[in-house]
Order: sequence, then structure tokens, then C-alpha cells
Amino acid sequence: MSGAGQAASGGDAAAACRANASAAPSAAEMGVRPRDVDQLCVDTVRMLAVDMTNAANSGHPGMPMGMADAAFVLWTRHLRYDAADPAWRDRDRFVLSGGHGSALIYAMLHLSGYDLPMAELRRFRQFGSRTPGHPERGVTAGVEVTTGPLGQGIANAVGIAVAERMTAARFNGDGHTVSSHRVFCFCGDGDLMEGISAEAASMAGHWGLGNLKVVYDANRISIDGSTDLSFTEDVTRRFEGHGWRVLSCDGHDRADIARALDAAVAETSRPVMVVCRTIIGKGSPNRQNTEKAHGAPLGADETKLTKDGYGWPTEKPFTVPAEVYERFAARAAENAVVRAAWDAGIERFRAAKPDVADIWERGWSQAVPSADVLLERMTRGFAPVAKATRQHSQDALQRAAAEVPTLVGGSADLTHSNLTWIAGSPAIGPTKGGPAETSQFAGRNFYFGVREHAMGAVMNGIAAHGFFAPYGATFLAFLDYMRAPVRLASLSHHGSIFVYSHDSIGLGEDGPTHQPVEHLWTARMIPGVVVHRPADALETFAAWADAAARRDRPTVIVTTRQKLPELARPAGFKPADVLRGGYIVHEPEGGPQAVVIATGSEVGAAVDAAKALGAQGLRCRVVSMPSVELFDRQDAAWKDSVLPKGVRRVAVEAGRPDGWGRFVGLDGLAIGISSFGASAPADQLFDHFGLTAPKIAAAIGRWWRG
Amino acid sequence: MSGAGQAASGGDAAAACRANASAAPSAAEMGVRPRDVDQLCVDTVRMLAVDMTNAANSGHPGMPMGMADAAFVLWTRHLRYDAADPAWRDRDRFVLSGGHGSALIYAMLHLSGYDLPMAELRRFRQFGSRTPGHPERGVTAGVEVTTGPLGQGIANAVGIAVAERMTAARFNGDGHTVSSHRVFCFCGDGDLMEGISAEAASMAGHWGLGNLKVVYDANRISIDGSTDLSFTEDVTRRFEGHGWRVLSCDGHDRADIARALDAAVAETSRPVMVVCRTIIGKGSPNRQNTEKAHGAPLGADETKLTKDGYGWPTEKPFTVPAEVYERFAARAAENAVVRAAWDAGIERFRAAKPDVADIWERGWSQAVPSADVLLERMTRGFAPVAKATRQHSQDALQRAAAEVPTLVGGSADLTHSNLTWIAGSPAIGPTKGGPAETSQFAGRNFYFGVREHAMGAVMNGIAAHGFFAPYGATFLAFLDYMRAPVRLASLSHHGSIFVYSHDSIGLGEDGPTHQPVEHLWTARMIPGVVVHRPADALETFAAWADAAARRDRPTVIVTTRQKLPELARPAGFKPADVLRGGYIVHEPEGGPQAVVIATGSEVGAAVDAAKALGAQGLRCRVVSMPSVELFDRQDAAWKDSVLPKGVRRVAVEAGRPDGWGRFVGLDGLAIGISSFGASAPADQLFDHFGLTAPKIAAAIGRWWRG
Repeated sequence: MSGAGQAASGGDAAAACRANASAAPSAAEMGVRPRDVDQLCVDTVRMLAVDMTNAANSGHPGMPMGMADAAFVLWTRHLRYDAADPAWRDRDRFVLSGGHGSALIYAMLHLSGYDLPMAELRRFRQFGSRTPGHPERGVTAGVEVTTGPLGQGIANAVGIAVAERMTAARFNGDGHTVSSHRVFCFCGDGDLMEGISAEAASMAGHWGLGNLKVVYDANRISIDGSTDLSFTEDVTRRFEGHGWRVLSCDGHDRADIARALDAAVAETSRPVMVVCRTIIGKGSPNRQNTEKAHGAPLGADETKLTKDGYGWPTEKPFTVPAEVYERFAARAAENAVVRAAWDAGIERFRAAKPDVADIWERGWSQAVPSADVLLERMTRGFAPVAKATRQHSQDALQRAAAEVPTLVGGSADLTHSNLTWIAGSPAIGPTKGGPAETSQFAGRNFYFGVREHAMGAVMNGIAAHGFFAPYGATFLAFLDYMRAPVRLASLSHHGSIFVYSHDSIGLGEDGPTHQPVEHLWTARMIPGVVVHRPADALETFAAWADAAARRDRPTVIVTTRQKLPELARPAGFKPADVLRGGYIVHEPEGGPQAVVIATGSEVGAAVDAAKALGAQGLRCRVVSMPSVELFDRQDAAWKDSVLPKGVRRVAVEAGRPDGWGRFVGLDGLAIGISSFGASAPADQLFDHFGLTAPKIAAAIGRWWRG
Repeated sequence: MSGAGQAASGGDAAAACRANASAAPSAAEMGVRPRDVDQLCVDTVRMLAVDMTNAANSGHPGMPMGMADAAFVLWTRHLRYDAADPAWRDRDRFVLSGGHGSALIYAMLHLSGYDLPMAELRRFRQFGSRTPGHPERGVTAGVEVTTGPLGQGIANAVGIAVAERMTAARFNGDGHTVSSHRVFCFCGDGDLMEGISAEAASMAGHWGLGNLKVVYDANRISIDGSTDLSFTEDVTRRFEGHGWRVLSCDGHDRADIARALDAAVAETSRPVMVVCRTIIGKGSPNRQNTEKAHGAPLGADETKLTKDGYGWPTEKPFTVPAEVYERFAARAAENAVVRAAWDAGIERFRAAKPDVADIWERGWSQAVPSADVLLERMTRGFAPVAKATRQHSQDALQRAAAEVPTLVGGSADLTHSNLTWIAGSPAIGPTKGGPAETSQFAGRNFYFGVREHAMGAVMNGIAAHGFFAPYGATFLAFLDYMRAPVRLASLSHHGSIFVYSHDSIGLGEDGPTHQPVEHLWTARMIPGVVVHRPADALETFAAWADAAARRDRPTVIVTTRQKLPELARPAGFKPADVLRGGYIVHEPEGGPQAVVIATGSEVGAAVDAAKALGAQGLRCRVVSMPSVELFDRQDAAWKDSVLPKGVRRVAVEAGRPDGWGRFVGLDGLAIGISSFGASAPADQLFDHFGLTAPKIAAAIGRWWRG
């Protein structure tokens, strides 16, 4: 992985800009009609967006052309960055929520001296380029978060902003200000139509995130046409309702943009939205201010007309006037001063507070012991009693939180059901009047409210910020409300920890609306995600150890509402075996005739069923498989030792059995639930759906007899 | 299925109430402290909620206790219903968005004379009862929609309200008013925290739904505690921003509630929210106004204190004073007059406009030909040319729309990408000033905006309304934004049609954020949903025929962005075979040594691969399986004829291969994509991921050779 987590090569950013300048023609040499240098910069961004999308024959020129003025003002007047060190901890974060406008950020990063050469802009949207269709964290230095699915970015920005306030609360003070970065987010109509934007905005307003500045590209055009077709709400009034300060400006009057951004930056107690009135595709004579400018390249004819209008040569696309690089070199030099001051401050901080600085350092380094080491530490003095795995999860979280001080999180209004509170730490609370109070951000616990979708995206923002290891929880059924951020966590390499309790019909009387059936497999299907469905205390602690240690991919931990038995394990078992994802939990005398794979609440029942079958003469091994993904990663020797070839197999899980086909094969048996659940006490449901030990044994017996 | 779609037995509703009254003791006989009859009704609802949750030892007493006043005023002053005919077409619809307050609606339905006897209230949350934990459409007469997952109900209500405006636009006029029902929705803080509420509210404001009245149970308590912990936005200002009129009242002052509801009902050009300030668990001395009243029964001690406070006997739970039944009998009698007037109006309508009345009748009856008949009609004069299945889908939609006049729908701002426009019909547009204009609701096309989640729930509301057959579309990747309504469509038996284009890496340059990988199987895993992934024109037409004919469950239709070849099919093939979900599309000379199962864009490649392998001496049958669910429903003879036992199998699909394990077994091969996609031209991606015909053939060859 490169990207935000990686220091760019190439040394000094201003030097990089100047090197580009020295190789570039002047505007006059290019044949550009004369204009002031700021205008030259803005128009260069527009022309690069036109060129990139034309070269790819794909992409979105309209948004970059519309927002180039605002981007230029933000970059050159406020944004603190160090292109030579994209991971500078106190950099301002820029989030492009409307990720389809990726050409804008690629152009800005290139001009600013990031490690994104023109060759990459020419390879826009091509295989293996650093300029994919939508910005991807980890692919492009300077891209903070992966965006494209609308509304995610604005919620990520909220997460980054609250994480900054939390680092500030922990490390600023006594004359030291080591954390003071702001989050600037560009969003569009589409982002604001998405419900996640309302959830995230409501959180930001509640928390009083004065370090968050959203610039709303109010171009009044969406893919279907004018927003008059579908989006006529009063956004200003709505965001005021969310607790924001709302400003506005003419998005093509840079003085007006500067005035609005100055006021936005001066506000420190509330999040700010700047409604920036723009023209999509500005300067494209036949497409500007229409949906035709949104999602298709201009093509040769319209490009000619557009560049003629801008007084720009058409012959050599991807040419940047030297003056533009020089302008960004000047900005880099200004930011170098800021960076140097911060570096000096950090040195003073380290000298004055070495212990605190050590915590600072370890947090940013994401240094966490490996899962097996964490598990060993977390289970010292371990004396588990039988209870629900959500209760074990609560216990494991306390141990994990002690080992990993950056672990922070909460629940979407199910704190006492999910059991996700870190004891001894307060909640993240709202600003109580006055500017920039930060003490209420010293806690580790979040009340996310009934906002699963934004919770997930805010977690990803916290992860993207770089200091904390976030977790968040709801019922497993409501994974459906937040699949996009789980997926994006994986694509973005965020170590977000998603905790889902009430994982089956075992939740009982709340009924089928709340009972997950398909959700275990639909979670496992998301590429790169590791899912744990633990069966008892040890497996739950292992799930948390694994999750806390995995800082480059998300982990899903699924727990029961109901009490489960503690498992007895055969001789030779080692706790770290759980981290292999699947292992033998019950072995019959004389070796297995059949193998029964079970997870979570069904492991105990499967063991009882195996014992009953043993008494009837059918020797069954039981394999507990808390994590299919971890098991899949084991070597063939381990897999074959657990699931020996040629021994017929059964799978038992209180959910859709479909996914188990690849483990049990055509002559195997997958016991599960393919219909919706029902509203009744849990024990009646397990009986009704055939998931008690006697019914499992009977089903296996029938299958074995053929 | 019983429920909203079924006329209740038992004849006249007032008579049902009076029969209950005649068997009940008077309040004095019960030992209830004297009070006026309205107060007696309200307190009865509260006591029933206490009794139901106590009996179940589970459930949510607080919301019914808090909203009993508002429910009583609404029911007795405004709500038009006919308990003897819950499916009365012009009934007002009541939606309980906070479905956890199910005891409230069950109590109201029982008291109002619906077919919900006290025995069912006593069986609250028990297996097989008509009083499940959360209200379920189809289980309980009078329950319009299934609620519980928060925010769905308010969006369903928007859907019902727009559907009413659409029936009004089609059938009212010339002195006839056959459609004038209103939608009343109770929602809580949790509903409003969910982003879907913002999406739906924005739609409703845009459409000017003057027939929608939302009563917001502003009790300022959520599960975690006071809303001060997480939800401090100005809801009034936000909803004004959404284009709503916002009123407020004291939720325990029935005169004030009546004043607010009267004003709400008088408003006809905008949706209305009534902010109803209530006390959760009102009257429970130790729990009211705290989260303890929310989700747990009061239990014996607190029940005693509560009932003592209310001057209510504790000995005989589930006892209703006769006066209460009489009060609801009186209301039923008032509504009987309304109903009789409507019946008379319908008779006049039928007499005056028999042809229009026939359309009215056929719409409400949901009469649609069977899928095979529809397919035959839709493919008359069929001369398909090779193109993308999204383009075939556009063609099929036109034919389906001609056959099924109630088909209405649209896209979440991807109209020209999803290709979901019904030609020759306008869009549903906003009210252009003035009260209750309806002509703009005569169209069949929706601009849903970038609001996938609300689109799905609004579709479900349109389906619940009962006249229309709704469809809605976005990219397949954004199924993640709207899984909850797809699931609820199935649980609720809505015939919603979900169309997802851009179904794989075949969308190309937009990259992994937009490329579905896991989504095919995660859609198939939702219980009861039928998924189609057609491979060419015929299969796409079959998908639409099947979807349009299926009025009791949702259908998912998945289409490509890219062009696909038209398939040649072997002798003996009949178009209706496609409706069997899986069939032989290519058969080698000499019979198959292996069977290759493929779907959608991979069928053509699999056929080419099979031909290439045939030339190398490996005889492969190719099975096209556009719908796994339909195939699963076939008899063993069909299945065995398509997938003969003992013949090894391969599956090919441009997505997670995991789910194919149950078809190919342990010695089979599942070719697919387990990682995220990438940003590049589509043909490069198919090559990179091994899904071109040559690479499929090579993989099968390697597998076959061992």
C-alpha cells in the first residue's frame, strides 16, 4: 500500500513543483490567451479534467470544471499540506465526497507536487494506474478516503474531524498544539440526497465539529437532469436544522469564495457548510449547466469549442503552463513554513512530555501486537463462565482496550444490547458552548444514535485519520443498513471493527424483521473482510484479538443475544488454534465417519448431537469454524487435518445454508434456515427450525442412512 | 396470506365492537377509578400495552403509553377505516413506523373491531400469533406495512401517499372522487435519526404530498437514554427544509392534539409533520421519561404501581371496560356512514364510466397474466439483436408496461444508465402551487433522486397501497444502500421489482467502488426473493414477464452495461424453459462429460469455451441459469435432466464463486472473482480476471486434467 499512509518520495514539495515548471512551456509559449496566474491555474485544472476524460474516453469532466475555482482558492489560501509527506500527521484533510470528480483531485495533487506524475494523469482510469475512476485510498498519495458511492465521503469527513478533536483533546495543552488540522470536504447534490449525509450531518452538528468545512457544489444538476426534477429541498434550512452554520458564495467569483472560506475557517464551534453556486462543465458551450457535462467526456468537437472559448490550445493536451507549477511551488513554500513550525512544536512536545509523546507516536504508528500475542495477553487469568457471546464480547473488549489504547467506539443506540462500552472512559460529547472546547473529546465511547450507515462511514473516517482503531455495533440484521461502509472499509484497507450482536433467530420475540438469516454469508462474501462468529468465551476473545491486531482490513464480530455453553476441547488443543479459523472441537473415539462443521451458537448443539449419534454408532467429529476466511487462509496440511478428504461432511448454522455447499459438497448436508424467522421465544424457534441437538442428530442420522 | 389484502370476516365493525362490549364489564364493575370515556379509552390502550408486554415478558410498553392520547384522537376524529373490510380501497392508511410500539396498533385494532380477538393480544410475540413482535403485513388485518427496522415506515408512508395521488389523478374528476385517502404515520426519534427518513421526507416535500401526515412522537428518549446524548438537531427546521409544514402539540392534551391534527388534515399541498411532545411510558412512576420504559415490560411491581396510579385494577389483565368498546362502536358507526357514501360514489362511478371503472377494478385486483402467458405476449414479433441486457430490459419494460398498466417506476438518478423509462408517459412531478393539484401524478415514471434506500421503501409503500406494481433501479453495487427494503419486500409479500444494471466488472472504468462482486449471491440469499441475471434478449424478457407476474414477492433483475451476444439454443428448446431458471443452452455431440453452469454475461463466453474444449476432445454441456431460485423450485426430473448426476460440474460467473459450491460440489470448479475489481476498460478486466472464453476454457481444461 502506498497513499495516505506512506511518505512520498521526492523530497521537498516546492522543489517538485519547480522541477515540473522548469520542464514546462510558459503560457505564452503554449499559445494560451493571457490572463492572471490564478485564472491560469483554475483553467489548467479544467483543461486537465477535459484531457483526462477524453483520453480515457470515460469519466466526469463537469464537476472538476465547475469546482476548479473553489479548489484553487481552498488549496492556495487555506489547505495545509506537505506533498512530500502526504502522511504528515497534522495536515488538513481534503475529502472529495463526489468521487466521480476524481479528475479534480488528481489534477490538484499533480500540480501541488505530490508523487503523481503527468504520466499517471494520462493513464486516467486505466488498469494499474494511480488514477482510477474514483479516488482510492492506498492507490494515490494524497487521497485520504475512497469515494464514489455517494454520501460516504461527507460521513468519512465527519469521522476524520471527530478523530482530530479526539487527538487534540488527548495531546494539546500546556502550550502544545500538536493537533489542529481541519477537514475540508467537497460534496454535491447527490451526496446530500443520500440519507447518510443527514445522519452524518446530524452527528457533526451534535458534536459541534468546528474543524469541519463542507463546500457544497450547488450546481443544481444531477445525472437525470436539473435537480428541479427530484431535489428541491432548502438545503440551507436543513443544515441549519442539523446544527450547522451555513454560508454561501458565487462559486466562480474567487474573491467571494475566499470571503466565504475565511468565514468558514474562522468558525470553530460548529461545522460549516459553504453553499457554492457553480456551473457544471463551466465553459463547455453546449454542455455546461446540463447533465450532459456530468458523466461523459467532451469529445473532440466540444473540446475544441471549449478550449477555443478558454483561449487554450487544443494541440497538446496535458500541457501545464510553467506559471501554474510556479504558483503551486509558492503555495508549497508557504506550507513548508507551516510544516516547519509544526515540526518544531513536536520537538518541544517530545522534549517536554516524553511519555505522552510516546503514546502519540505509538498511536500514529498503529503498532499493535499480533493476534496470537494479544490473545495470550487478553486471556491471562482467564476463567470464563457460560454466558452470551455478546457478554464475552464486552469482557474481551475491556481487555483489548487495555492492550490497545487507541481502540474507541460505540453503538448505534444499542449500547446496552450490543455491550460495547469501554469501562472507565466517558462518552464523546457535544461542545458545551464557547469555541473549540475539546475536553469532551477525551473519551473512548461513542453514542452514534440510530444511524448505522453513518456510524460505519464515520468509523472509516476515524480509521482514515490514522490515530485510532474504531469499532461500532448494531444488531446483525441491521448490517443491511451499513453494508456500503463495511465494503469500503475493506477496499480502503481500514481496520474498522464491526460488531453485530443478536446474530440469529436466537434473539427471539422481536421476530423476523430483527432476525438475521442471510447476513452471515452476505458478510462473508464481501471481499477481504474477516468474519468471526464465536461459540464461547475463548473464541470471542480470539475474535477481538484478531480484530484489534488487523489494522489493514475490517473485521466483523458476530455475537449471540442468548447464553451459550462453554466448550470443552480435546487434548492437544491450543488457544491459538482458534485463530486458524476452524479446528476440531470434538473427536469421537475411533476416528470420524463424518465431520460436522458448526459455528457460534450451533457448535454446542452440534457437539451434543455428535455425542448422541456416537451412542447410536455414528462417529462424528465436530469442527468449530468461527472464521471461514481465516480457515481458508490455512495451509493444506491444516485444512486436511481438520476436514479430511473422503470423509462426508455436514454443516450446521442458524442461517442460510447455501454458502456451506463448498465445504460439504453434493453428498453433504447443510442444516440451516432458508426462510425468514418468526416472533417467539428463542428456544421454541430453535426447535421449530430444527436446530436443537436432538433435531440436528436426527437430521444427520437421516442423511447418513441415505 | 391474510391481512390488509383480505376482507375481514365478521360483518359490520360497529357490531363487532358492540359484541365485545356486551361481554365486557363496565368500568365501575371492573373497579376502575371514574373518568371520562375518552380518558378511559386512552388508559385502556396503555393498560393493554402493559399487559401484553408483561404476558410476553418481552416488548416495548413505553411508546404505546406515550402515544395513546394521539392514537385515540387520530382514530376517533380523523382516521377513516372499516374494520370489517380492512382492504377497503379508500381507507386512510395508518403506518406505525416505530414498529417496536406494536402493542399500540394491536390494541387499537382490537378495540376498533378488527379481526384481532383478545386471545391474540394475550399471545403477543408468541409463535404463530397474529401479534408478532413487530407489525407484519399479511399476518394482522389492519397492519398496512411491516415495520421495525427504523425509518422504513415513514418511507413506506410516502410511497402509499404518492400512490394515492396517482390513483386520484387517474380516477377522480367529472364529479367523481373515488380516491381521497390520507396516510397517517407515527414515527419516533429513531426513525428520524435514520437517513432514510431524510431521503423520504425530501421526496415527499418535492412531490407536495398533501395527503401525508406524520405524527412525531417527540419523547426525547432513545434506547441509550436521553436524545441529548446523540440527537439534538432542530427537527422542525430540518423538515421545513425538506419542504414540509411543521406543527406541534402537547401529546397528552387531547384538545391540543385535535387542534394540531385538524390543521394537519386541512393542509393539502404539503406533507405535514406534527411534533407531538410526549412522555415515554407515561404513568409508570419509576420508568416514565427514561429509556427503561422503552424496551422492557414493566414487570409485576412496577405494573402494580402504574395501575394504582391510573386507578386501574391489577387483578384481571386484558380486561377492557364496556364503555371503551362502545366508544369505538360509535366511531365505527361514523365511519360506516363515510364508507356507505364512498360505496354509493363508486356505484355512480361504475355506472357513469364503466371502462374507467374496469381499469380501476383490474388494478386493485392485481390481476396479471401468468409469467408464461406474459412472456408469449411480450415476445410476439420478437426480433432481438445483440445488445446490453440493460437495453433489452428497456425494450422488455415497454412490452411489460403495455401488458400491465399498473406498472410504474423509475431510477435513483440513473434513468439513462439503468434504462427504466416507460415511453409515452410523463414523470411524476411536484405540485406546482395551489392546493391538491393532481394532474402531475398521472404519469408512470419516477425521478427518485440519488436516494436508493428510500426508493426501495417508497416502492414497497406503493405496493402496499395496492393498486400499482412498482419497479425501481440503480447500479447493482448500490443494492448495498437498499438491502433493507428488498428484504422487507419479501417478508411483506410486496411484488416490488428491483432492477440493477451494471452488474459486474463489465462496467469498466468506474472501478471497484462501482463494480459488484459479492452482490449476486448476497441478493440470492435474501429469503423469498427471485433473482434473474439474464444472458440475452429472451432471458431479459422472461425476467420481466416473471417479475410482472409475481405480485406476492419481490423480483430482482440484474443487467449488464456491456453488449452481449444473442444465444443460439438447441433443438427442442422452448422460450418458457427460461422460466425454469436453468436449462441447456449448448449440448455437445455425444453427450456431456462435464456441465458448465453460467449466468448472464458469462453464458456466451461459456458456450465459446465449450466449443473450444470440444475441439480439444472435452465434451461440455453449457447450462444457462438466469435464476437459481426458479431452478431450485423445479422438480427432480427437470433438475436431473439439466444437471445429470455423476457428471462433474463447473460454474462461471463474474462475481464471488462461493455460492456455486452447492451446485458444483467438492470436485467441481467455480470460476469467478473473489477480490475487488479494478478501474480499466471492461475487456481488459474480463481478461485479467480470467473470464474470457479462452481463459475459461483453459481453466476448465486444467481442472479436468486434474
